[in-house]
Amino acid sequence: MTKTNNFHIHTSMGQIPKNIIFVIPDGAGPSLYAAYRQYKNQGYAAFMNRIIMDDYLLGQVSTSPKNDSSKTFITVTDSAAAGTAFATGQKTYTSAISMDHKGNPIKNMAEYAKEVNKKVGIVVTADVAHATPAVFYAHATNRNEKAHIADQLLDHPASNGELKVDILMGAGTPYFKRQDRNLIQEIQQKGYIFVDNKHDLLTSKESKILGLFADYFLPKYWDMPETIPTLAEMTHCALERLSTHEEGFFLMVEASQIDRAAHLNSIASAMSEMEDYEAAWNVAIDFAKRNGETLVIAASDHDTGGFSVASKGQETFDVNPLLQMHASPEKIAQELIIHQDDEAILKKYIDWDLTPIEIATLSNSRGGMFADPYKETLSNLIQFINWRTNSGWTSFNHTGGDVNLYAYGPGWENFLGFHQNSDIGQTLINLIQNKKA
Amino acid sequence: MTKTNNFHIHTSMGQIPKNIIFVIPDGAGPSLYAAYRQYKNQGYAAFMNRIIMDDYLLGQVSTSPKNDSSKTFITVTDSAAAGTAFATGQKTYTSAISMDHKGNPIKNMAEYAKEVNKKVGIVVTADVAHATPAVFYAHATNRNEKAHIADQLLDHPASNGELKVDILMGAGTPYFKRQDRNLIQEIQQKGYIFVDNKHDLLTSKESKILGLFADYFLPKYWDMPETIPTLAEMTHCALERLSTHEEGFFLMVEASQIDRAAHLNSIASAMSEMEDYEAAWNVAIDFAKRNGETLVIAASDHDTGGFSVASKGQETFDVNPLLQMHASPEKIAQELIIHQDDEAILKKYIDWDLTPIEIATLSNSRGGMFADPYKETLSNLIQFINWRTNSGWTSFNHTGGDVNLYAYGPGWENFLGFHQNSDIGQTLINLIQNKKA
Repeated sequence: MTKTNNFHIHTSMGQIPKNIIFVIPDGAGPSLYAAYRQYKNQGYAAFMNRIIMDDYLLGQVSTSPKNDSSKTFITVTDSAAAGTAFATGQKTYTSAISMDHKGNPIKNMAEYAKEVNKKVGIVVTADVAHATPAVFYAHATNRNEKAHIADQLLDHPASNGELKVDILMGAGTPYFKRQDRNLIQEIQQKGYIFVDNKHDLLTSKESKILGLFADYFLPKYWDMPETIPTLAEMTHCALERLSTHEEGFFLMVEASQIDRAAHLNSIASAMSEMEDYEAAWNVAIDFAKRNGETLVIAASDHDTGGFSVASKGQETFDVNPLLQMHASPEKIAQELIIHQDDEAILKKYIDWDLTPIEIATLSNSRGGMFADPYKETLSNLIQFINWRTNSGWTSFNHTGGDVNLYAYGPGWENFLGFHQNSDIGQTLINLIQNKKA
Repeated sequence: MTKTNNFHIHTSMGQIPKNIIFVIPDGAGPSLYAAYRQYKNQGYAAFMNRIIMDDYLLGQVSTSPKNDSSKTFITVTDSAAAGTAFATGQKTYTSAISMDHKGNPIKNMAEYAKEVNKKVGIVVTADVAHATPAVFYAHATNRNEKAHIADQLLDHPASNGELKVDILMGAGTPYFKRQDRNLIQEIQQKGYIFVDNKHDLLTSKESKILGLFADYFLPKYWDMPETIPTLAEMTHCALERLSTHEEGFFLMVEASQIDRAAHLNSIASAMSEMEDYEAAWNVAIDFAKRNGETLVIAASDHDTGGFSVASKGQETFDVNPLLQMHASPEKIAQELIIHQDDEAILKKYIDWDLTPIEIATLSNSRGGMFADPYKETLSNLIQFINWRTNSGWTSFNHTGGDVNLYAYGPGWENFLGFHQNSDIGQTLINLIQNKKA
């Protein structure tokens, strides 16, 4: 028959991993996995092939933040509070970067790892001072203090004298190359190589890397040019280097832009970024299977957008419109704004036919009535796709649902079942400290 | 620290249960659990107490149906196709009651159980000929053939000569007491006791029971009168009787009306029925812990409504309006229709104040403009509650997301991770047949 007796059951328990890889698909609630499974199966079937994550499902995580009386009306978390729970083992208030309610820093994962002389890597597709990466190496009362967050890399080295992050890759050039300070030069003086393109990354040999490949966000996976590494490629490069270190490593890998896609209620962009996530997860799992001493876990920080697989009473979720697109809605909208030749651009990137009314709506989006023609164009295009796919969304913000939890490797058994996000963090910290979780 | 080392890990594996209890919270997607946790905690907190199900989370289930070319546009399942997968181990088309595409019956759980001389119980809060209970004991090409489904109890006994269900409780009187046939009398002649109220049920001693306590649906849990048993009470009575049987039993327990609540997009009704589900789950788990030879599992057949915990960009999900209600929206709307004294009725059942515009809207709902004033009144009341709680919904129909899977007891390890709904059914069948799953 069937796939029972999950392989996890036959894996030994009570082990302590030497290395930990923590993959965070920012904003991916449970229903995006079901949608992505259908997308990857190129349409609907009764028995769809599993996506790579499916084999490692172990439970779920509650994402609730711990707001004080000034924010008691906020019951839904953000990436800062949720990330802090993962990175420190403690819940805190929304927008806090590993900081408690009294303004005291809470020791975070990079600091714990460096205490036991492990290497630390962080690779993301947002800027590297964004909330999710920041909580793992910095402290701030507010997630928006990005220059201050970036400064801490240089100004507050780890207890062993090294910088807290050995391999840091993603976007964020403006936070590092500023009028008041050039953190890129400073970090190079500490023995790091700086790279800003894929070729230089792939041909580099150095063990300490700062890689900044865009200002604020890497391009979407569907749009990725040859000059910029994907999340999977960054993960692979990070693992090549970190794995040579005898005392082991902690690597955080964030598929940052699933959240951003869901904030726009864009199912096409979400599928693009889920694909990026799956490819990176695959690299991590492949490494762990060969290595044998590596725990890989994945959990979202929260759901974004309240997505559902079908909506409006329709009995179908149709991925065909997504399969028939050759760029993200963001890129298509950008080109419509720049080139103004709607028909040619739509034909180039979308195999299905927009209706005359839809084409007129896109054209009107740039008619001067709208403060931000790009946003208006993008928003309309996204709605046309949601309508065709029967994608359901309830919010442009986060929601408070539980998120899925996946794990593989030594220590896996600690992640079985239902957990608080802070318990996930505390368990990882215990494992880093070589304690039974 | 924390709750790691899930108790499951310390439970022995490779066991075969003597008894199986399968609890189905019809229509409950993952996000309803998070909402219910907050509701049960009487508001929001960073560390909320677990709901009873949380301790038993093991994975998720894909619910996809297997439609043929005449229905290829239907990718989202219904209770018939999804229930058939659970009850037979095989996927089939939407609306099929344990029947394949060629019109051949597929052997179902009651039939498998009776082959090895186990007793069978089915307790639900919808009518007992509804799709979910029906798939476990009957066969029909269409779920709407309810009289035909009920007839099969008498007309098609099990292979051991007994009727296929020993304890059958829920609603459905009109399908049993009909002009053409009185199934109640017929089943009494087979040695069953018939009960239609809680007192008679609780004082009965017989081991074979037909209990029909309403025409189509039992009252909502929040509205339950003293005369009608709750799902937990029915479950308790069923277990008392089934557990005396030496060869063991299969019991299906359905919290049928979570689905119905979600079809209406009514979060209050959904919480009422989740409460019913949790109480019944608790009875099942308590029994299994004492008994030691019983596997309990829970899985929804599908998500309904695409619910999300917060919506409309709001950063809060507020359960206070739900805590301050003393009847279901259905009951309140019914009373508004019957008694026409809006202010007194609203004051009696709802502690928060409706706005003057809302009160006028409810009053206008009965103004003769609407074909179904009850539905109009109910629908408006539900929207007022959704607005206050920030409940998000995307559909009045089912959606295609994965659903959560919970288990406890001998054989639990078969349910770890991600599964097809048909694999859940096949595993249970293997266990009933005393095979390693």
